[in-house]
Amino acid sequence: MKTRILSEEDLRACVPNDPDALSAIENGFTWLLEGRVEMPPIMHFDVAARKEVDVKGAVVRGEPAFAIKIASGFYDNPARGLASCSSSFVILDSETGMTRAICVDNGYLMDLRTGLAGAVSVKHMARKSASRLGVIGTGTQARWQARCINLVRPLTKIVAFGRNTDALATYCAEMTQELGVPVEAASSPAKVLSSTDMTVTTTPSKQPLVTANMIPPGHHITAMGSDMPGKRELAPNCLERADIIGCDDIDQCLNNGELQQLSGQRDTVVPLGALTSGAVHLDRPDHAISICDLAGTGVQDTAIALLALDRAEEAGLGTLVN
Amino acid sequence: MKTRILSEEDLRACVPNDPDALSAIENGFTWLLEGRVEMPPIMHFDVAARKEVDVKGAVVRGEPAFAIKIASGFYDNPARGLASCSSSFVILDSETGMTRAICVDNGYLMDLRTGLAGAVSVKHMARKSASRLGVIGTGTQARWQARCINLVRPLTKIVAFGRNTDALATYCAEMTQELGVPVEAASSPAKVLSSTDMTVTTTPSKQPLVTANMIPPGHHITAMGSDMPGKRELAPNCLERADIIGCDDIDQCLNNGELQQLSGQRDTVVPLGALTSGAVHLDRPDHAISICDLAGTGVQDTAIALLALDRAEEAGLGTLVN
Repeated sequence: MKTRILSEEDLRACVPNDPDALSAIENGFTWLLEGRVEMPPIMHFDVAARKEVDVKGAVVRGEPAFAIKIASGFYDNPARGLASCSSSFVILDSETGMTRAICVDNGYLMDLRTGLAGAVSVKHMARKSASRLGVIGTGTQARWQARCINLVRPLTKIVAFGRNTDALATYCAEMTQELGVPVEAASSPAKVLSSTDMTVTTTPSKQPLVTANMIPPGHHITAMGSDMPGKRELAPNCLERADIIGCDDIDQCLNNGELQQLSGQRDTVVPLGALTSGAVHLDRPDHAISICDLAGTGVQDTAIALLALDRAEEAGLGTLVN
Repeated sequence: MKTRILSEEDLRACVPNDPDALSAIENGFTWLLEGRVEMPPIMHFDVAARKEVDVKGAVVRGEPAFAIKIASGFYDNPARGLASCSSSFVILDSETGMTRAICVDNGYLMDLRTGLAGAVSVKHMARKSASRLGVIGTGTQARWQARCINLVRPLTKIVAFGRNTDALATYCAEMTQELGVPVEAASSPAKVLSSTDMTVTTTPSKQPLVTANMIPPGHHITAMGSDMPGKRELAPNCLERADIIGCDDIDQCLNNGELQQLSGQRDTVVPLGALTSGAVHLDRPDHAISICDLAGTGVQDTAIALLALDRAEEAGLGTLVN
């Protein structure tokens, strides 16, 4: 029983940011809704101050394999010239438990699956006509969210805000070049929201950056930065103002996401799986305000890993060990 | 930043079952006692009936790297000609979170670190003159415990019991050849204990196999089979009869090990780290009965993985990826 070792280069080759990868993540959310997923609580290591590791994963009944992802966030890395976040995926055979493959992805698959969840939320919740994207934050996910959302709502403009003005300028220059659309810097979150159709928040903030009065009618917000108790990007009145609230996984969002501040609306929160599966048809008037909270789920890891495994086996990619 | 991929063959070459590996595991228990270890609860996946995966790991402050181990137990595998258990270790840099190495060990390192914990318990708790080993069970750990205990108490005889008489005969034949000492089959656990100086129990039993009246004066028992709620190999009166009770990790043993049945003796349980560090000097008269409960700890995974990493880097073993 050989184990296939896939490098970042292999993974970039076999799982690009494209509609197939988007479908894989949509399927993941559908599996969640169908109750086919065994997803234990996140395993968390406090390595040291500003250094943490999370382990996520999900078994999906009926699928031939499943993934466990080890993701690190070491927030002083940039000062050493290294990315803050990295990851690797161990893919196990569902029938034998043997290690089918290991993705030494350096964060690539993780970033992609996270960006694609943002795209899924926008595809199913934002106005069809939305084409101007607001971005709060200037880091890795500020890039990935824009790349992936561009798959589902071809963008005509991006307006970005970040506290670090150098990082903001770099973001605007790089993303203008990469996506071929104007990417403008804004001087506040309010200005981002007022000049766009939809906004994605991508920061690790513990203080709200967006308040209800900033949200124009018809706007969609995907809040994907909050993934731990105590983090929040939206003021509580944003959730109160929203006509529609969605999320990736209700339990995880109540513990780790923006829904930590939800009061008594739990029954009205729509899981993305209800939309991807077609179980719920969302009535979304053009003037409605919608918010989707993403905490990040292990089922996304298994969904993207299964696509990588299929493609890599078919193409004979990687190095076989043992 | 390259990641070193180590195969089972690499790992067998650089971390054999020897006194250095034993010392590594002893150090692990010492780290636990010193309070240097961050060890979150086990992450458990119920994949399906008789199919489970456990994730364990430990950060050790002051050490340059740490390991997270993914271990599978798929108990119908033998019918397919496969081992029930497998594993892989992801080794992360403590300063950057980058993936330093991945051990695709097929269970080798896991089995070794588990066997060595048995050896540590015997080294520090059994009579110095003990040389006759009883073994309950005939599986993988029945082999590894004998191999590793032979490092610390050179064996003159092994007496084994297992319900499957074919498996028992195979065990006796194979281990006689491997260790060069007589390995005899016994017809009951009672006969194992009555003809040996120390016994290791290695089964996944949920019913007690050993009762207090079977334990001769001076005997030592290492119970390493129980590692989940509901499992037990010893009747509760064994713990009551014991003069000395030890364990690898008190919290884990109270939840998952024989100590689930402990009543009110918690304060008297000696952690192995107290013995390996020398913090406690055990007064062990030759007639005393001692029992050590091993549930298996993430710190053993990091301890053995650090040894593998050091040796592999020094020898340039493995394949570099990325």
